[in-house]
Parts: sequence; structure tokens; C-alpha cells
Amino acid sequence: MNDDVKGMQAALAQRFGEELAAIPAGQGPYGWPQSCPETWRRLAARGSCRRFAERPVAPELIETLCALALCAPTKSDLQQRDIVIVEEPARARINELLSIGPLAQDWIPSAPALLVFCGNNRRQRQLHQWRGKRFANDHLDAFFNAAVDAGIALSAFVLSAEAAGLGCACISAIRNHAREVSELLRLPEHVFPVAGLGLGWPAREVHVSFRLPLSATVHHGRFEEGGIRDTVDAYDRRRAAAQPIRAQRATPLFGTAEFYGWSEDKVRQYAGSERADWGAFVRAKGFRLD
Amino acid sequence: MNDDVKGMQAALAQRFGEELAAIPAGQGPYGWPQSCPETWRRLAARGSCRRFAERPVAPELIETLCALALCAPTKSDLQQRDIVIVEEPARARINELLSIGPLAQDWIPSAPALLVFCGNNRRQRQLHQWRGKRFANDHLDAFFNAAVDAGIALSAFVLSAEAAGLGCACISAIRNHAREVSELLRLPEHVFPVAGLGLGWPAREVHVSFRLPLSATVHHGRFEEGGIRDTVDAYDRRRAAAQPIRAQRATPLFGTAEFYGWSEDKVRQYAGSERADWGAFVRAKGFRLD
Repeated sequence: MNDDVKGMQAALAQRFGEELAAIPAGQGPYGWPQSCPETWRRLAARGSCRRFAERPVAPELIETLCALALCAPTKSDLQQRDIVIVEEPARARINELLSIGPLAQDWIPSAPALLVFCGNNRRQRQLHQWRGKRFANDHLDAFFNAAVDAGIALSAFVLSAEAAGLGCACISAIRNHAREVSELLRLPEHVFPVAGLGLGWPAREVHVSFRLPLSATVHHGRFEEGGIRDTVDAYDRRRAAAQPIRAQRATPLFGTAEFYGWSEDKVRQYAGSERADWGAFVRAKGFRLD
Repeated sequence: MNDDVKGMQAALAQRFGEELAAIPAGQGPYGWPQSCPETWRRLAARGSCRRFAERPVAPELIETLCALALCAPTKSDLQQRDIVIVEEPARARINELLSIGPLAQDWIPSAPALLVFCGNNRRQRQLHQWRGKRFANDHLDAFFNAAVDAGIALSAFVLSAEAAGLGCACISAIRNHAREVSELLRLPEHVFPVAGLGLGWPAREVHVSFRLPLSATVHHGRFEEGGIRDTVDAYDRRRAAAQPIRAQRATPLFGTAEFYGWSEDKVRQYAGSERADWGAFVRAKGFRLD
């Protein structure tokens, strides 16, 4: 990793395929930047980890990471997210659910620890019962706030874990089995899984995947998508040259493409229906999505 | 801030009202922990900042923070989040929308920079058009994934900004005016605001708000809520003693409470309907929430 901001920006430039402008001197309360914040260096070089050393992660370390994750922002101080540390026998069953079938992720059973980040709008509703005041927000926003709150904590957990040298990967496929996972973890009404997280000590360097250029994803003043198709094409080519995708998806349906880039891969993934029952699950958890 | 893990854990213990178990030696690839990762120290001591020095934040710094935020995990590598850096004249109008009325946040106009984090499921649908394959996931999951993706990037942005000494506060109230904000920022179909973020150099130390104890929010093996009412009562008292809430909400409706804790404050906030039109807005953006 690079020790100075320029070196870190060079790493970002490679990842995004775009140069970043130098940050002028005198920013920050102490005349910063002199050296690069560790958080920045870690983030610029981060990637998902799915290959782990056969070493456990101490429960005390996981507990501290959970606390750190819950220090992240939370909508209106409502704290509508919980973390479940998966244990046996639920772990074995979740391994089974996620590592067999067409969407199998065979790395999951090998992750030393598995966590599930949940949205929790239940506590808020309980407060209303206890304090004798009506909960007047039984609509999409209640579900939305808890889901985003869980995402915010998940992100802070990942950054905290990686700062300790741990590796992790998010598992949204846990929602492909929302009903069974929910039963295994005894999630009550108004509590729902947002994502799983596999955690352990990395067995190899992580893969730092390229990102869409900032010209596509960061907008100045107003949303702007002129030239987006060319931008994606160029991204596909740049990424395929440096980070080719080895296995093409759904070849029985779509054949083998001569050029197989990121966009083709993502389109093939979402040409198949996934989690069509997610809405029904969320409603069965007691949410109205009006 | 504390330089060692024990000191950082002591700060967490105060914040959560619970001791954290010592992390055993020998964790980590280098015999860690020896010193405390900067990311941890920052997170343990973080809080929202709503009072800023009258100094701009260099656009180059904001650009680098956006890039760092977009290095955070993204569901299935889909990159379904965008950031809009608000500029005049939209800024003046958004200031006006958010700083007047019963839900006014008078600090917002004083924030040197304002960003809006958006969920973007539009690009994915465009890819399907371009590659001639059906998008087979026009249901709740499409909206959900983009929303959580934006939350993940927002969290990483906050941590990156705070690592540079900046202060920030999330603004979910931007969704109270989703339609107008969306028009001001020219957000097209399938792109929606998740949260705003005010950003600047802090004018004072941030307020480190207490969190619910981990016994309420972190679950081992299965969701467990035994004793939750007592836990919340104790949290209310502990927090009120150290961090009393000065202004009671909605006194014309609920009167002045003798004891006014966190839970009473949150219940009063959600006893009033807020963002009841959020679902209609999201559907008008083209999402089906089935």
C-alpha cells in the first residue's frame, strides 16, 4: 500500500480508469494532506475475500467489530439494524442452502465466521406499544430505513474487519432463502435479513475489481448520462484486458460470447429471475410497502 | 483518541454501556493486535457533525472521497449507486426545502458541501436493452439492492471523510421532498435519492451519541429479545444522565414529560406521519415493489 495521498490516488486511478486531480495543500485542520489516512489506503486497495486460512476468528474480535459497525451513522438515531452471528446447527444448514444449486457459492462453508446483517423495525414498533403512542409510519419508508441502516453498518463492519487484516465477502444470496434463513435465526416480525457476511483471515491477496469511471457514477450539479453506452463499452474492454472473466454464465441459453465483458456478465445474471418472492417474504414479515 | 486496542475498547464500552472482552493475542497475520487500527479509533469516536468552519472543502478532495466510497462492496459487482454533488441553483432550493417547516434542520445551509447518494437501477436496465436480453427482475429486489448499495457507499464515504478530519451528517429528510429533489437533480427513471450528506470542516468536537447495548443488537446463534424492555429503559436512563435531550418534541400533542429519554423522543418522532408518499414516488420512478 502507498503511504502518501498521491500513491493512493494512483491506485484509485488504475481502479477507476481515470486520473484523479491532486488535492490542494492546506486542506484539513493540520495542513493536511501530509500522509495518507490508513482508512483511505485500505479502501482504495480493498476487495472481497473468499479464500480463508484455516484459522478461527476470535469471538472477542468479532464482538469488537460488531460494536464498531454499530458506531456508523444510523437514520435519525433509530438504530434499526441488528447483527446475528450464525452458530451451529443453523450454520450447517445455511452452508447447504448457499453452496448447492445453480447459484452455488462453494466458498461459503469454508468461511470461519458467518454473520447476518438484519434490518430491524421491530424495536421501534415495540417502543410505540410501551409508550402508548401510535406508530404512524406503516408504509415503505419503515422498511426502507431499516434496510439502508443495515447496509450502512455492514459497510462499516467490512472496513473495520479489513483494517484488522481480515477478509470478508457479502452474501446477498442469503435472501434467496429468506424464509428458511429467517426461521433458522428465529427472526421475528419486522426483522429481515439484508445480507450475510463471510469472514476470516485471508489465504491470498484479494482481487481488487475495477470500478466504473467516476464520470459515469459521480455527477456535478445534475444527473448526467451522456455517452454512458460508450463509457460502459470502454470499461468492459479495459476490465476484460486486465481482469478477464473466466467462466461465462448461462451458455446453454446464450452460447459462448467471443467478447465477454462485465456488462454481458451482469446482463446474463439478471436475465434469470432471482428472489421474485422477496416482496412476499417482506410483506409476510409484517411490512406494508405502500 | 486512544492508541491501543484496549483504550479504543474502553471508549466503546462507554458508548455501549457494556464492557468488551479483551481480544486475545496472536490474532491477525502479524501477531496483531499491537496498536489500534486508525479506522477503529475513528469509528469508535465518530459522531455526526452539523457545525462547520466557514471554509470550503476542495472539489478535488470530494472527488477522491467519492472514489473511495465507491470502492466499498457493491451487490454482485453491479455498482448500483451514484453520487450527485449538489451545485447552485439546486443547492439554494434544497436548503430552503430542508431548513423551513416543522422538520427544519437549520444547519443544512451552512454545510460547505452537500451530496446526494442515489440508488441507480437504471444502468442495469440499460445494459439489458443494449445487450438484447430481458431484465427478469422487475420486483422489490431491484429497488432493494440499489438502495442498500447506496447505503454501503454512503457509510464508506462518511468513514473516509472523517479519516481526513472532515465532519458530516446524513440527511434522510431529503426524501421528504423526493419529487422536487429528484427534479432539481434531474434524476431519471429508476434513479432515486437515498440520503443527502452535509460535509465540511468541523467547527467543534462532534457529539458521540450512546448506542443501544450489544446485548440488544448483536445476537448469538438466533435472534433473542428477552429483557429488551428493561434494556431499553436502562439505556434511556443512562443516556439521559450523560446526554440529556434538551428540547422535547411535539409538546402541544404529548405535553412535557418528566423523564424524557431516547425512546420517548423516537416514539414522538414516529407518532407523526413522515414520507407517506415515498412509496408512490418510488413507483413513479418505474419500480414495481411486488
